[in-house]
Amino acid sequence: MASLSSTNCRAYSSTSSSSYAASSSVHHGHHQRLAVSSVPKRFLRNKISLQSQSNPFSTGVRMQDGAVATKVTPVENETPLKLKEGLLSVTSSEESKDAAGFEFSEDKSTVSITVVGASGDLAKKKIFPALFALYYEDCLPEHFTVYGYARSKMTDAELRTMVSRTLTCRIDKRENCGEKMDQFLKRCFYHSGQYDSEENFAELDKKLREHEGGRVSNRLFYLSIPPNIFINAVKCASLSASSSSGWTRVIVEKPFGRDSESSAALTRSLKQYLEEDQIFRIDHYLGKELVENLSVLRFSNLIFEPLWSRQYIRNVQFIFSEDFGTEGRGGYFDNYGIIRDIMQNHLLQILALFAMETPVSLDAEDIRNEKVKVLRSMRPLELENVVIGQYKSHTKGGVTYPAYTDDKTVPKDSLTPTFAAAALFIDNARWDGVPFLMKAGKALHTKRAEIRVQFRHVPGNLYNRNFGTDLDRATNELVIRVQPDEAIYLKINNKVPGLGMRLDRSNLNLHYAARYSKEIPDAYERLLLDAIEGERRLFIRSDELNAAWALFTPLLKELEEKKIIPECYPYGSRGPVGAHYLAARYNVRWGDLGLEQ
Amino acid sequence: MASLSSTNCRAYSSTSSSSYAASSSVHHGHHQRLAVSSVPKRFLRNKISLQSQSNPFSTGVRMQDGAVATKVTPVENETPLKLKEGLLSVTSSEESKDAAGFEFSEDKSTVSITVVGASGDLAKKKIFPALFALYYEDCLPEHFTVYGYARSKMTDAELRTMVSRTLTCRIDKRENCGEKMDQFLKRCFYHSGQYDSEENFAELDKKLREHEGGRVSNRLFYLSIPPNIFINAVKCASLSASSSSGWTRVIVEKPFGRDSESSAALTRSLKQYLEEDQIFRIDHYLGKELVENLSVLRFSNLIFEPLWSRQYIRNVQFIFSEDFGTEGRGGYFDNYGIIRDIMQNHLLQILALFAMETPVSLDAEDIRNEKVKVLRSMRPLELENVVIGQYKSHTKGGVTYPAYTDDKTVPKDSLTPTFAAAALFIDNARWDGVPFLMKAGKALHTKRAEIRVQFRHVPGNLYNRNFGTDLDRATNELVIRVQPDEAIYLKINNKVPGLGMRLDRSNLNLHYAARYSKEIPDAYERLLLDAIEGERRLFIRSDELNAAWALFTPLLKELEEKKIIPECYPYGSRGPVGAHYLAARYNVRWGDLGLEQ
Repeated sequence: MASLSSTNCRAYSSTSSSSYAASSSVHHGHHQRLAVSSVPKRFLRNKISLQSQSNPFSTGVRMQDGAVATKVTPVENETPLKLKEGLLSVTSSEESKDAAGFEFSEDKSTVSITVVGASGDLAKKKIFPALFALYYEDCLPEHFTVYGYARSKMTDAELRTMVSRTLTCRIDKRENCGEKMDQFLKRCFYHSGQYDSEENFAELDKKLREHEGGRVSNRLFYLSIPPNIFINAVKCASLSASSSSGWTRVIVEKPFGRDSESSAALTRSLKQYLEEDQIFRIDHYLGKELVENLSVLRFSNLIFEPLWSRQYIRNVQFIFSEDFGTEGRGGYFDNYGIIRDIMQNHLLQILALFAMETPVSLDAEDIRNEKVKVLRSMRPLELENVVIGQYKSHTKGGVTYPAYTDDKTVPKDSLTPTFAAAALFIDNARWDGVPFLMKAGKALHTKRAEIRVQFRHVPGNLYNRNFGTDLDRATNELVIRVQPDEAIYLKINNKVPGLGMRLDRSNLNLHYAARYSKEIPDAYERLLLDAIEGERRLFIRSDELNAAWALFTPLLKELEEKKIIPECYPYGSRGPVGAHYLAARYNVRWGDLGLEQ
Repeated sequence: MASLSSTNCRAYSSTSSSSYAASSSVHHGHHQRLAVSSVPKRFLRNKISLQSQSNPFSTGVRMQDGAVATKVTPVENETPLKLKEGLLSVTSSEESKDAAGFEFSEDKSTVSITVVGASGDLAKKKIFPALFALYYEDCLPEHFTVYGYARSKMTDAELRTMVSRTLTCRIDKRENCGEKMDQFLKRCFYHSGQYDSEENFAELDKKLREHEGGRVSNRLFYLSIPPNIFINAVKCASLSASSSSGWTRVIVEKPFGRDSESSAALTRSLKQYLEEDQIFRIDHYLGKELVENLSVLRFSNLIFEPLWSRQYIRNVQFIFSEDFGTEGRGGYFDNYGIIRDIMQNHLLQILALFAMETPVSLDAEDIRNEKVKVLRSMRPLELENVVIGQYKSHTKGGVTYPAYTDDKTVPKDSLTPTFAAAALFIDNARWDGVPFLMKAGKALHTKRAEIRVQFRHVPGNLYNRNFGTDLDRATNELVIRVQPDEAIYLKINNKVPGLGMRLDRSNLNLHYAARYSKEIPDAYERLLLDAIEGERRLFIRSDELNAAWALFTPLLKELEEKKIIPECYPYGSRGPVGAHYLAARYNVRWGDLGLEQ
């Protein structure tokens, strides 16, 4: 079994725990291999619930098209509980004996986390700090090593210096931070190599083995590198540096292609070297606290149960705004645009979580199955339901903000949208006719990500006259502010105190900063921990990705083929007015641009 | 028409306005008399709504038993739009001509408010200050006079001195307070007289006429006197001091009898001198801001619409606590007890508002009709569904708090309950099987009045395991805190921020003090203004009162006949534990006594 050192950092107990625990102690035909290799330690530690739903189908990565993603051979079937995962593993009989039960002690396993592209921005700003935060919170296994891998020459000490510059301690628990940092940095190493060199990865493998010191070896590769060198790195890591005794997992970052075809090609390539359950496609929005909370809100509160359908919900809005442009780094962006960069992944993923039917359990596969069903019930986006924009230069208060095409890395005649608004529809019984509006943009007046659920009018409202002429302002709205300044609020109509009968919209408020003194962990912490623990719930499965591309690909092609010209909007503004006309077409109103938000 | 001077203090616009306005300009057979005399000025001023629901039945006081409370004689029918109300009025043809249209100007009408029992506690603490607050806010008619009436000898100046001691200015608008106070006090006069002397009331009438100076005279009597002298005062006021040209209305205070029989007798006596629509039975809880808001919350917010029934609501609790005992003034109380003093009126009225079906409109009669239907659908209370208590002496921190029977005005062997808890049931389609729990007590650990709506468990809750063993703690709860420190909050389950999946109950909060800077008006302000404006919505109709007594009378008799001994509880405690067993019997839990409230 792939064991982890003690991690009490999570008070995690879900129904999935018991089903994992139950199924991993019993052989379920060809499922037992996964049942062992993918059981996160924390699940096994949980008490078995009386409500345990032992479901033999809940442990494998089974996709909606009926395929089982794990490769099953007769040989493997005859070696039950063998500790091997995917095509990469080479399992000696000795190792498998060692690993084939729950007997071996914790100190016999180790996790090596290799950050491929260690000198990149994301690695410095997010990955290393998240790993340190996990270490600081005692969430990492007892034996772990962090390896930086990149092309530049660097010593271990230089890497440590680089990493140490961005490490910070959690606000709520600053004791021993310096000491903890030193301890963490001692576990960090560097290996210089080409991304396409099997030899260099073999050298890495050798170093990793030394650190592993004969323990069961689990290896996580975080590929923080550009798409063009992506597959080569997977290939090399897989062939030359995958674990021989434990699991090997690979976290990959967007972009996952540019359209259905390129995405499918990428997946095919990945699957030459990795099995489905080794691929962890990261969408960091799924790691955000309030996105995680979305399912809790919806499924653990009775009051939302009757409301969550076309009968009560008039429309749902997913809004993403950035208050800065590409700022000289538009080279990558220009090839993708805001629809691919934000909508097709982050916003669509949140939409799927929002709209899915109740899953059988909280198991990763049950949730991902429901998400795929939502995506497959959606109408492909049509051009008439989309507004695109691009920001132009704007001078305010003596400061001139640049246009998108002023970015040196962007072609002068670029038609790439930096803003898009879209109306999507889910053609199923729950959501038929309900517009799901999306809006994403750069260089807008504010920085924010939120979900807005606008409810219908009250039928036969006794108080209609008290609202004045704009009845739309009198509907209830549930707002989940994902960032910044996390909050949940429910707009309700309330009597303004006093002798009259004047109504206003007040908020039933849950402001996180006021309620919870704890700092909210960064999305990358959650996702890295999940990947280490084998929890796939927040990662995107291949069939999910296909379905997501299927929705957007026809539109993206049409935009490019027809060279649709984006509507201009000034840097720092509220975006192109076309977004309002799009909303108006479906008789709704953007919730984030009103007088009161 | 009974006109008021300009009152812009209310931004009141309800559907009822238009129906009033519409019906008062048209003759509806025998309804037209009321249609005029009871139309508050502010209703006529409203714009006519396009959604106007002109309902000829909405303007008369029609009770649930089919009786029309106004006395209709052929003579009156032949004199449409005559300005006369009830048996008391003596209408000269000259006056009726003057009053029989909308032509006369505002300065021709006046309102005289006579506080009978002017030297009493309520008058000093509540009635005069409320009248001043209304004056300060420009809510009173241009021409008005306030008369104090009591037995003691006092000059006008002495009354003014007495009254001035308790006047305060609204917190949010202190300008010119002293000046306004002087102006108000100049309108205050005193008349000394016996409560049963027609002669003395005739003298008052003479003084009132002088102040009225020939204008249309409207008279409001506030009877703030003990029940035994009540009917005599009504008789004298009616026979000797009722208005000869405008309306005459009488506000009466609880107790409205001790049981069905005595209440019915009281109503019969009142009706010898007053018509139904002249009787304003005050229940000051109905004037409280959050009780007024109850209907707004419920009927103007779609999100509550599907929830408001047995399908989603597990139980509802109406809780009233006082943190002091009778403190030497138990004489009156001992004859009534907490059930009559709080439950049968205040809590039951709130229950009826909470549970009623959607009324046809916000008109007083529509709302009161629905309330009566609720009361008539309720099961009479049974002894086994009631727990009574009486507080005992308790020493804490060196201070000894007295027992109820230590009160000098209370018999040593009194069995009068100072605490009661009860489970009530509404046997209709909406509420079948839902326990409505009530709890009221004196000398408890806290001062509070609140409504708690506890929702059912989530069926098939995916997160059950995350709640620990006590699933009851995981249900949603809507709390409406009526006093003190008005607030509305909705307890929801939320993910505690962090890497784990720990849930807690957080509040979606609307704290009035934080949201509204305006001071909340006292209940008496609202109710006095309503009485002046002829708005009967918040006053209790005779048939409502009958239905309320019908519920409680069998229980009250059984308690007294069987001499049921109340359960002791210490002064300042949380009340008798019996209340918990009563709740447990219906498988619910008091919301106000948990760890988190």
